Amino acid sequence: MADAVEQLIEELAKLPGIGRKTASRLTFHLLKQSKDTAYALSQAIRQVKDRIVFCETCGNIAEGPRCAICRDPRRDDATICVVEEPSDIHVIERSGHYRGRYHVLHGRLSPLDGVGPEALTVDGLLGRAREDMVQEVILATNPDVEGEATALYLRRALGPVGVKVTRLARGIPMGGSLEFLDEVTVGEALSARREL
Amino acid sequence: MADAVEQLIEELAKLPGIGRKTASRLTFHLLKQSKDTAYALSQAIRQVKDRIVFCETCGNIAEGPRCAICRDPRRDDATICVVEEPSDIHVIERSGHYRGRYHVLHGRLSPLDGVGPEALTVDGLLGRAREDMVQEVILATNPDVEGEATALYLRRALGPVGVKVTRLARGIPMGGSLEFLDEVTVGEALSARREL
Repeated sequence: MADAVEQLIEELAKLPGIGRKTASRLTFHLLKQSKDTAYALSQAIRQVKDRIVFCETCGNIAEGPRCAICRDPRRDDATICVVEEPSDIHVIERSGHYRGRYHVLHGRLSPLDGVGPEALTVDGLLGRAREDMVQEVILATNPDVEGEATALYLRRALGPVGVKVTRLARGIPMGGSLEFLDEVTVGEALSARREL
Repeated sequence: MADAVEQLIEELAKLPGIGRKTASRLTFHLLKQSKDTAYALSQAIRQVKDRIVFCETCGNIAEGPRCAICRDPRRDDATICVVEEPSDIHVIERSGHYRGRYHVLHGRLSPLDGVGPEALTVDGLLGRAREDMVQEVILATNPDVEGEATALYLRRALGPVGVKVTRLARGIPMGGSLEFLDEVTVGEALSARREL
């Protein structure tokens, strides 16, 4: 195949969840599109790298040194919600139930992959949690093995700081079916049941 | 979310098989990559549009007016293999069983979507098939409803040209399981059975 085609297939195949077959399909799709469409995608990739950095304070994506949430004076300084990735912030914001600040770990503990606390933004979090106005740290890491381990580690590290540490409630997700839920979730949903 | 991020999600979501969720995942992945990695992808997309055109003769992808296969004097001028898309050429080439020329239709007949013969490169094919050296046209359209309809249309259109028209054999694919094969394929595999 032509070099330029081979090259694009190779670059696309580096993306997560995209194998060589999908990369090849996408390449031939782009070949059929107008120049403008393909250029727009090429340009959008450049711009995201040129314009977006990570917020100095919380690690969220930002177009300047501090992100839109850290710059917003109406947000509540008393709570910090800790997430693994910037994309998790978007999920929590969409719920409309949180008005505090965030802290992005940029990963989770994973000893097998060599990811220890020093590879995450744990020091920054401890520093922020020590500030007087902070009263609660909400741990919103993912509910899987690594996320749980990260949450347990953070709870212990935050112990001496003397701040309240909470985590997201476990339970049955909306639209979920009992039949397909694991026993841990059902167990936690039972023990945390609420009066109707 | 930041404009640049929103923009990239939107552009990625235009690609076939990529919804907003995947687009968002890919965007955050690119945000975490080095500038070089992201620039390489951006550049590869531009280059494919800047360098690659479709071959004047057969419609395959090419880096000049004629593609590598049309320029190759060792290929057999007596046969033309007709495929729907340039990517199909790659599949046939990989088999190593074909040394003739190709012709890319750039689509297939689909009256419901308003795709008639004039939207395909049928005229070009008829012109090429009329040349003295051409003895056989192999129809390698996809074995689905539209591909079959396109093959039947082409066989009729090629009738007056007086060239031999063949199509790829039907049968049981390697690694396939009889249990999951449709009855048409099994029927054709039976009637075209060969002595061992």
